[in-house]
Amino acid sequence: MKTIYNFSAGPAVLPKSVLEKAQSELVNYENSGMSVMELSHRSSLFDKIIQDAEALLRELMTIPDNYKVLFLQGGASLQFTMVPLNLAQHKKALYVNTGSWSKKAISEAQKLDSVTVEVIASSEDQNFTYIPEIHKEDIPQDAAYVHITTNNTIEGTTIYDLPDTGDVPLVADMSSNILSVNYNVADFGLIYAGAQKNIGPAGLTVVIVREDLIGQSDILSAMLDYEIQAKNGSMYNTPPTFSIYMAKLVFEWIKEQGGVSQMEKQNKAKAALLYDEIDTSQLFSSPVNKKDRSINNIPFVTGDDALDKKFNQEALAAGFENLKGHRSVGGMRASLYNAFPEAGVEALVALMKTFEAENKGAK
Amino acid sequence: MKTIYNFSAGPAVLPKSVLEKAQSELVNYENSGMSVMELSHRSSLFDKIIQDAEALLRELMTIPDNYKVLFLQGGASLQFTMVPLNLAQHKKALYVNTGSWSKKAISEAQKLDSVTVEVIASSEDQNFTYIPEIHKEDIPQDAAYVHITTNNTIEGTTIYDLPDTGDVPLVADMSSNILSVNYNVADFGLIYAGAQKNIGPAGLTVVIVREDLIGQSDILSAMLDYEIQAKNGSMYNTPPTFSIYMAKLVFEWIKEQGGVSQMEKQNKAKAALLYDEIDTSQLFSSPVNKKDRSINNIPFVTGDDALDKKFNQEALAAGFENLKGHRSVGGMRASLYNAFPEAGVEALVALMKTFEAENKGAK
Repeated sequence: MKTIYNFSAGPAVLPKSVLEKAQSELVNYENSGMSVMELSHRSSLFDKIIQDAEALLRELMTIPDNYKVLFLQGGASLQFTMVPLNLAQHKKALYVNTGSWSKKAISEAQKLDSVTVEVIASSEDQNFTYIPEIHKEDIPQDAAYVHITTNNTIEGTTIYDLPDTGDVPLVADMSSNILSVNYNVADFGLIYAGAQKNIGPAGLTVVIVREDLIGQSDILSAMLDYEIQAKNGSMYNTPPTFSIYMAKLVFEWIKEQGGVSQMEKQNKAKAALLYDEIDTSQLFSSPVNKKDRSINNIPFVTGDDALDKKFNQEALAAGFENLKGHRSVGGMRASLYNAFPEAGVEALVALMKTFEAENKGAK
Repeated sequence: MKTIYNFSAGPAVLPKSVLEKAQSELVNYENSGMSVMELSHRSSLFDKIIQDAEALLRELMTIPDNYKVLFLQGGASLQFTMVPLNLAQHKKALYVNTGSWSKKAISEAQKLDSVTVEVIASSEDQNFTYIPEIHKEDIPQDAAYVHITTNNTIEGTTIYDLPDTGDVPLVADMSSNILSVNYNVADFGLIYAGAQKNIGPAGLTVVIVREDLIGQSDILSAMLDYEIQAKNGSMYNTPPTFSIYMAKLVFEWIKEQGGVSQMEKQNKAKAALLYDEIDTSQLFSSPVNKKDRSINNIPFVTGDDALDKKFNQEALAAGFENLKGHRSVGGMRASLYNAFPEAGVEALVALMKTFEAENKGAK
C-alpha cells in the first residue's frame, strides 16, 4: 500500500502506535473479556482509565492543583455557550476576534441575555492574517474574562505571547494547539479544547478550569454546569468512555516522546521545513503575518485558483489527504499536529519543488 | 479464558462480530491508510458512514420521511434540556414520572423559566414499581408534549402500550429500549436515546424528531438547537465520528439478525427465561408489577441484603459482570439488551438454581 499523509485539520492523524495498541485490545481489554466500549463507566477498569487520563494530562501540562480537569462532550462549540453561562452571567465578557472560531465564540456568547459581550481587539480588517495587539488599558478590570483563541485553525495564526490582562482571567480556546505548544496553565483561568486535533477522537472535549471560577451562578442545565460536572468527576452522566481511553493512550504517547516541550520542538522543526520552502518559493506564499504564523495549521497559496486546484489534485494523487485549504481562505492548508510525521512534511516540500519547476511561468 | 457475561446497564455488551469488524479495520479503514478516527468529517469516506448510519436506522425503525434523524452528543441528560428548550418555550410541558431518569428529565425542564412543567402521572408512591395510568382528560390539548420514559433502566418497568394523548405529541426517552422493542415512530413527536445500551459506544445520542416540531423558538446556543443541527446534517460542528461508525456497524448487525421485530422476539425469549426462574423460585423475586416488567432491565432480589451480597459475589466469581443492582433498588439487575446472548441468561438461571438449593432456609 502506498504511504498516506493525512494533513486534516481535524479529526486528524493519530500516532500509529496508539492505534495499534487500541486495535490489539479492542475486543478484550486487559483480559477482562470485554471491550473498553463495553465497560460500565462505574467499573474499576474504567475508573482507572479516566483517573490515569487526568493524571497524565496534569503531568504533561503541569496543571496546578487548584484547577479542575473535565472530560466533556459537545466540542469547542458547546464551550462557546458554557464559558459565558458559567463565568460571565451579569458581567462583561471580553473577546479577541482572530478568526472564524473566535467569531462563533462571540456570536454564541451574544445569544445569552445575561452576558454583556465586548470585542476588545480584532484582525478582521485584514482577513485575520495577523494577531491584533491587546492593550491592558482596554480591559475593564471588573470583566469576567478575556477570551482568546490561541491557535486559529482556519487562518493559520497563533498567539504565542499571552496578553497582560491584569486580574481578569484569560480564557482560551486551545483546540488546535493544546499539548502542541507549551503554554503555562497558571496563566489562564480556563482552557478548553475539542479532542480531535492533538488529543484523540472527536466527541471528547477537555476543560481545564480554575476552581474559584466555577459555581458562580445557577446554570439552566446540569450538563452545562462546570460545578456539577466537576463534583461528579466528569461522570454526572455516562461520559464518552472510549474517547477518554483513546486520549489516555495519546497522553502516554506524548509522555514517551518527551512531553509537550519535545512536541513543540518537533512541531517547530516540521513547520520550519514548510515555511522555509514557502518563503524560498517563487510560486507559493503564505497569507499570514510572519511573527503570528501557526506551527500547527499552515495555509499557503499560489495566488492563482487554477494552479491551486492543479496542485491539490497532484497532492491527492500522491497520497496527501486533506491538504485542500478551507473554503474561506482557499489554496492549501497543511495541518501538522503532534502525530504528523516529519517525513510527511519532507514529502510535501519535495512535491512543491517539483510542481514549481514544472509550472514555472504558468502563473 | 473463561466466558464473561456482561450484564451492564450501559455502556453495555456489543455484538462480538461488530467489535471484531471494528478491530480488523481500526488502523486502516477500507484501505484508505487511515483509521475511521482519523477521517475528516467532511471527507467522502465519513460522509458515506453517516449517510449509511442514517439510512439503516430509518429502515430498521421505519422512520417516516417527515422525521429528521440527528446524531448528537451529551446523552439523554442533555436532551432533558434540549427537548423543552426547543419544543416547549412559553408552553406547558407534561411529564409522566416513572423513575429516576424521568425525575431528572422533569427537574431539568423545571430549570427553564420559559417552560411550565406539569407532572400528569407518577408511580413514585410505590417506588416506581409500576407504570401509572395516563388519562387523556388530564392532558390539556394546548400542551407542547407529553414526555414518557419508555423503559426505566433502574426500576425495570416498560411502557408497552402508548397512552392516547390526542393531538399532543408524545416525546420519549427511549435510551434503554430503542431498537429492542418495536415501537411505531409515527406515534411519537420526538424520540431520543443515548447510544450506550442498544446502539453503540457512549458519547453518541440519537434524536428522531418530526420536522414540524423544530424551529419554533430562538435557542440560546447553536449546539442545543435542533433546527441548526438538522440543517447541518448533524455536522454543525465535528460530530463523534467513531461512535457514529460503531452505530452503523450495530445497525448492520441488527438488520442481519432480522431487524427490530426479531430483536424484540429474542429479547422476550431471553427475559422469559429469567422471569420464569424468578417466579418459580422460593428465594428470588421481582419487585415489579407483572404487566409492566421490562424485558431489557430485570431487577430481582432475595429480600435479604446478606444473601443478595453473597449471590452477587458468587455471580462475579462465575464471570457475570455488572449484575449488582442499582443502589436505589438493591439486589441484582440483569440488563439484557440486543447483544446479550441467550446462553448468558441460561447460565444465570443455572447459577440461581444452584444458589437457591445451597441456601435453602438461609433466609
